Amino acid sequence: MSSNSFGDIFTLTSWGESHGKAVGVVVDGVPSGLKLSYKDIQLELNKRKPGSNKLVSQRKEKDKVVIYSGLFRGYTTGAPVLIMVFNCSYNKQDYDKLKTTPRPGHADLGYYFKYHYNDYNGGGRSSGRETIARVAAGAIAKKILKRLNIFIACYTTQIGNSKDENKYHLNYKKTIKLRKQSNLLCLNKNCINSMTNEIENAIKNDDSIGGIIEGKIFGLKIGLGDPVFKKLEAELGYGILGIGGVKGFEIGLGFKSATMKGSKFNDIYIVNNKNKIRTKTNNCGGIIGGITNGMDITFRVSIRPTATIKKEQKTINLKNYKTKKIKMLGNHDPCIVLRIIPVIEAMAAIVILNSIMRNMNTKLDNIINNYNLWT
Amino acid sequence: MSSNSFGDIFTLTSWGESHGKAVGVVVDGVPSGLKLSYKDIQLELNKRKPGSNKLVSQRKEKDKVVIYSGLFRGYTTGAPVLIMVFNCSYNKQDYDKLKTTPRPGHADLGYYFKYHYNDYNGGGRSSGRETIARVAAGAIAKKILKRLNIFIACYTTQIGNSKDENKYHLNYKKTIKLRKQSNLLCLNKNCINSMTNEIENAIKNDDSIGGIIEGKIFGLKIGLGDPVFKKLEAELGYGILGIGGVKGFEIGLGFKSATMKGSKFNDIYIVNNKNKIRTKTNNCGGIIGGITNGMDITFRVSIRPTATIKKEQKTINLKNYKTKKIKMLGNHDPCIVLRIIPVIEAMAAIVILNSIMRNMNTKLDNIINNYNLWT
Amino acid sequence: MSSNSFGDIFTLTSWGESHGKAVGVVVDGVPSGLKLSYKDIQLELNKRKPGSNKLVSQRKEKDKVVIYSGLFRGYTTGAPVLIMVFNCSYNKQDYDKLKTTPRPGHADLGYYFKYHYNDYNGGGRSSGRETIARVAAGAIAKKILKRLNIFIACYTTQIGNSKDENKYHLNYKKTIKLRKQSNLLCLNKNCINSMTNEIENAIKNDDSIGGIIEGKIFGLKIGLGDPVFKKLEAELGYGILGIGGVKGFEIGLGFKSATMKGSKFNDIYIVNNKNKIRTKTNNCGGIIGGITNGMDITFRVSIRPTATIKKEQKTINLKNYKTKKIKMLGNHDPCIVLRIIPVIEAMAAIVILNSIMRNMNTKLDNIINNYNLWT
Amino acid sequence: MSSNSFGDIFTLTSWGESHGKAVGVVVDGVPSGLKLSYKDIQLELNKRKPGSNKLVSQRKEKDKVVIYSGLFRGYTTGAPVLIMVFNCSYNKQDYDKLKTTPRPGHADLGYYFKYHYNDYNGGGRSSGRETIARVAAGAIAKKILKRLNIFIACYTTQIGNSKDENKYHLNYKKTIKLRKQSNLLCLNKNCINSMTNEIENAIKNDDSIGGIIEGKIFGLKIGLGDPVFKKLEAELGYGILGIGGVKGFEIGLGFKSATMKGSKFNDIYIVNNKNKIRTKTNNCGGIIGGITNGMDITFRVSIRPTATIKKEQKTINLKNYKTKKIKMLGNHDPCIVLRIIPVIEAMAAIVILNSIMRNMNTKLDNIINNYNLWT
Repeated sequence: MSSNSFGDIFTLTSWGESHGKAVGVVVDGVPSGLKLSYKDIQLELNKRKPGSNKLVSQRKEKDKVVIYSGLFRGYTTGAPVLIMVFNCSYNKQDYDKLKTTPRPGHADLGYYFKYHYNDYNGGGRSSGRETIARVAAGAIAKKILKRLNIFIACYTTQIGNSKDENKYHLNYKKTIKLRKQSNLLCLNKNCINSMTNEIENAIKNDDSIGGIIEGKIFGLKIGLGDPVFKKLEAELGYGILGIGGVKGFEIGLGFKSATMKGSKFNDIYIVNNKNKIRTKTNNCGGIIGGITNGMDITFRVSIRPTATIKKEQKTINLKNYKTKKIKMLGNHDPCIVLRIIPVIEAMAAIVILNSIMRNMNTKLDNIINNYNLWT
Repeated sequence: MSSNSFGDIFTLTSWGESHGKAVGVVVDGVPSGLKLSYKDIQLELNKRKPGSNKLVSQRKEKDKVVIYSGLFRGYTTGAPVLIMVFNCSYNKQDYDKLKTTPRPGHADLGYYFKYHYNDYNGGGRSSGRETIARVAAGAIAKKILKRLNIFIACYTTQIGNSKDENKYHLNYKKTIKLRKQSNLLCLNKNCINSMTNEIENAIKNDDSIGGIIEGKIFGLKIGLGDPVFKKLEAELGYGILGIGGVKGFEIGLGFKSATMKGSKFNDIYIVNNKNKIRTKTNNCGGIIGGITNGMDITFRVSIRPTATIKKEQKTINLKNYKTKKIKMLGNHDPCIVLRIIPVIEAMAAIVILNSIMRNMNTKLDNIINNYNLWT
Repeated sequence: MSSNSFGDIFTLTSWGESHGKAVGVVVDGVPSGLKLSYKDIQLELNKRKPGSNKLVSQRKEKDKVVIYSGLFRGYTTGAPVLIMVFNCSYNKQDYDKLKTTPRPGHADLGYYFKYHYNDYNGGGRSSGRETIARVAAGAIAKKILKRLNIFIACYTTQIGNSKDENKYHLNYKKTIKLRKQSNLLCLNKNCINSMTNEIENAIKNDDSIGGIIEGKIFGLKIGLGDPVFKKLEAELGYGILGIGGVKGFEIGLGFKSATMKGSKFNDIYIVNNKNKIRTKTNNCGGIIGGITNGMDITFRVSIRPTATIKKEQKTINLKNYKTKKIKMLGNHDPCIVLRIIPVIEAMAAIVILNSIMRNMNTKLDNIINNYNLWT
Repeated sequence: MSSNSFGDIFTLTSWGESHGKAVGVVVDGVPSGLKLSYKDIQLELNKRKPGSNKLVSQRKEKDKVVIYSGLFRGYTTGAPVLIMVFNCSYNKQDYDKLKTTPRPGHADLGYYFKYHYNDYNGGGRSSGRETIARVAAGAIAKKILKRLNIFIACYTTQIGNSKDENKYHLNYKKTIKLRKQSNLLCLNKNCINSMTNEIENAIKNDDSIGGIIEGKIFGLKIGLGDPVFKKLEAELGYGILGIGGVKGFEIGLGFKSATMKGSKFNDIYIVNNKNKIRTKTNNCGGIIGGITNGMDITFRVSIRPTATIKKEQKTINLKNYKTKKIKMLGNHDPCIVLRIIPVIEAMAAIVILNSIMRNMNTKLDNIINNYNLWT
């Protein structure tokens, strides 16, 4: 499959450059009969929009959604959905000298060698604006998952050295409620100040700062995911590690598992008060051997500090291989964590929906039952 | 693509159950003209074979390779290569009661709900024996990469609480040489004793222990990998998180990035003494924005403690939802780290080769040049 | 997807050479819970086996099926199914000189230029023996389709100049019954003699002869198939044109449509006595715009005369580009039509099943209903 | 892969409805460094535009191309190319009653059952306007193929009963020159009148008429195409049978092969005056066993008479299953052959380019040589 497409049944194809005419996505495999309006997409896009508060990039983009296909009288038709956003705020000459001046921490050098003809303005295709495609497609996936009582929530657990040490065993509603307490999208009230300080410090020093995001997927039945290469954690990891700035992904206890004994790590099965099988602990993070065990999926994602900083940095001039100094202007995020959260949720939603769709054909009885219901 | 296949140009399709007749793989997309013998495969398979030393499972399997297609007079033909290993050592009745007794930490419950008709003997399809398919295919990938001067090496950096704190900036040969010092596949002589102790302690207590593996990919040019969904780190993560027992994957500084400032994290470009562009540090781990920057790729993988332990554990009887005790017999690895290393190397080799093959068509000039050379 | 795989949900991966150790297939995406034995496969394979009567190749192959994975206690498990047949009757030296002597009408020249290292014995990978993979996978697909009351039947309508001019509007049972009247697999008793003559004439003259096969797919509901690239006729055409020796594919009136007026060609909708919508005529062959209309699918396939003939032919020596004469020995089919019929049925079954599986996710309501039934 | 995508390396994803806002395509896998302007696309689109002469539909569409991504300073960048055309001429109320009135010969009934929520205006997704996506992507493919000296030309050989009986062995330039003699896109001057009559007759009778198109692909080397499922004829057939209105596809002698003897059908190898291997005849149509043999590829495509006619026809009311009469208004093509020619050329170009790209990795030596050239 092509490099700008994701998913095998619910499939998105992303296109557009940071400083081109527009960025957008074609979403194929959307089932017919889903009530959908541009507002559903806009709502999600607004979460990743720049300029929404003082802790994020001040670039002025309306990110106004248009949908050009796949909708009819308020419902999806089963045809591919073209969603796009026209770019407004850009200034090509700012970046012109950058073709032969790769910015440290950016993809510029790799693109130069790989493509040579790439649009380097604002990072072009490597810009975070590409994630509009993912969030738009994710908005559709989330709406479908909602119909299946499946919900996804990500939140900040660390910014720089400010770390939320709490363990959360909340349901979806509670999680979202706590998250709304601040722009930092963390659940712990006591961390708001210190996390804000970390970001404000970075701004003050013309610098940037990293962080960690935790994600939960609520409401999955036992038996989702595939056993070998398409293990559910592998597909989640693939989707999330494919977001710019992500440097690590772990499921359940993740890197902490290394120090543990099997007798402590293994989650013991119990029967809950609704007569459902669950586990006492959730060390595995809701997935064993690639397949869900009925517990909430729990994963963590590490985010590097934003590559673009105002501080002067050294680099190389690609024309003469001499050292050169650069200072980046423009509007940039001091900490990408806050704006990456809706992107991670989107990718997780797409992975889960796609896996559910694939699972329609796992048991012969399901195929026969479903087929018999076709009119 | 189907759930038991991996890769889009160099593609493997894995099949077989732990206690079935055989396990094997079809490797498609192997170029013609590669000198290949069953010995190349056997050599790699021996690295993951049980019973090779006292720190791993004592199951007796010869794991003797047969190749049934795709080879002719010592060279690959361009046709799919069928490689398989017949299973020898198994005893189906040991496991019969397990159908309705899901083992804690194993995939049994998920398989029962998902498939219902699955072969549960020895974990069936979820068994580590499936990785024979990956190592066999990886052996071919490695042989091709060698022709391009690309090499991969993984080594143990942590077992339980024994941690190798060194940072390594060695080349491939040096790495392999250090790794050969012991069965533990770590590079640091001083860790051998404490790591051995961790495993022996686990054995003594009828328990198991986790660990961490570091991997390096040497010799890649600038410009490999794809920019959006198929970022090279995402494909590596996908391949490696799809191996049973892996709970986390990080690239470069990984989870440490969270605490860092951009001005420290960004790798500054320099020109080395061979007039090649490199970076001063390698915090990003050799990949930025999905594309290699000419530095060695560095990643880390966390491995959970083996699920199978001899200690008695509680579980649920799926027939009556009552609590039940189980004790697992048979031969099991006290620490899967040592045997998972060749599997990770194999998956990394497959991902890198596949990405190189995809990159043949990135630039128009390359297409024209290559086409003109076709006889 | 790789060149030796077919299907996106129900997927087969074919491997093996004519004179290698074995030929076989991995079938992935088989739902769990299908009662299946090697006999189901053997039964279908026997239909394409050489030596079954005097009108086909006399090569001696038992084509005895073995299944090495994916089955447990008589049922499919949902894991990939490895099916294979060991080759018995071959003599490598017969063909050795052929490496640089491309046989007219065979794929030898193309393989030599494309791969150079290919196994040319008996045509290697280009041999009709590869179709064992398809027929074996098709046997599974047919068994599943039977559970959905979908049946496929192909029959001979022309051998050389002997042409069955009848139009058939029979059901499946009637079709199979008529087909059993003779080895020629035609429905028209009156054609048996003249068709037999055509083949016997070819044998007598050390030559071969072509023919035409008609296929029907019975029992499909309205609404199967996809609208744009994956039109059902396109997928059928793709599957069937990928069989060696096929030179044409048409659906419904096919090439006759060229001379027709729209007012005659358009099939007029009626309501049948079971209150189902059907059409008066079936000129479109059961598919409009890629999607079934509830009528039997009807297609026709043209088969070239077998490339291998005993008559002496001229060719080129690839070492010195000089003209050379060759005479082919060994056992060959004078007319491939009879043995290709089960292969076409297999490919059609695979295409239809795969399309049905894809259709599970077309309507949101179906997804919700099916999901709610998962335990 | 999703139903609205085509190709595995050079990939298009088509979107848009006949009477929606726009129709368009995302083309992924376009190599960087190709000089490309919207004019290259416009030129090809103009060939399939309605209203270009009196023999085709008089619908007024400017079909003006816009490109929103993947281009920078006149060259492709290697990023996905979004190409679209805004729809102008439509009147939704014309079609409103059609939701429950399936037009004979159209896809309406199938869409109603399959999707239920589909946009039925002007056929929605099943309209010929979707082919804009294909022609636009094909324009890029053709431009790349031109750089490899590969050319494609299709021409009319039959309209209704007017049949061009000539056999053509011309080169590309000669073919195009002859084709330009008239709007009918046939090569034979003597057929212009009778073909025109066939179409004018259809117009006069409020009816439509079918036809046959022949296609040639010039300049291919020996060794292109894949051996098993992805035989080059199978991929061409798949691409072309996926175009609305196509009812048959044959390669080389096609259906005529049925009556032939092997000794006549087999193409005998010769060495031409440039010391290249060619064949005396070209009965196979340039492809044997899925792989090119160095001769021009020759194929033929049958086109049904346009479904939309002005004549009154009977159909069923889907609300009450009663018979109903309909008369279709609007502008329609009396014969789709002329406008389908650029679409077939586009699909053929995409298939050939994609196959060439796949072939970059067939031989190990090619991989090594190409890799060594990467900077």
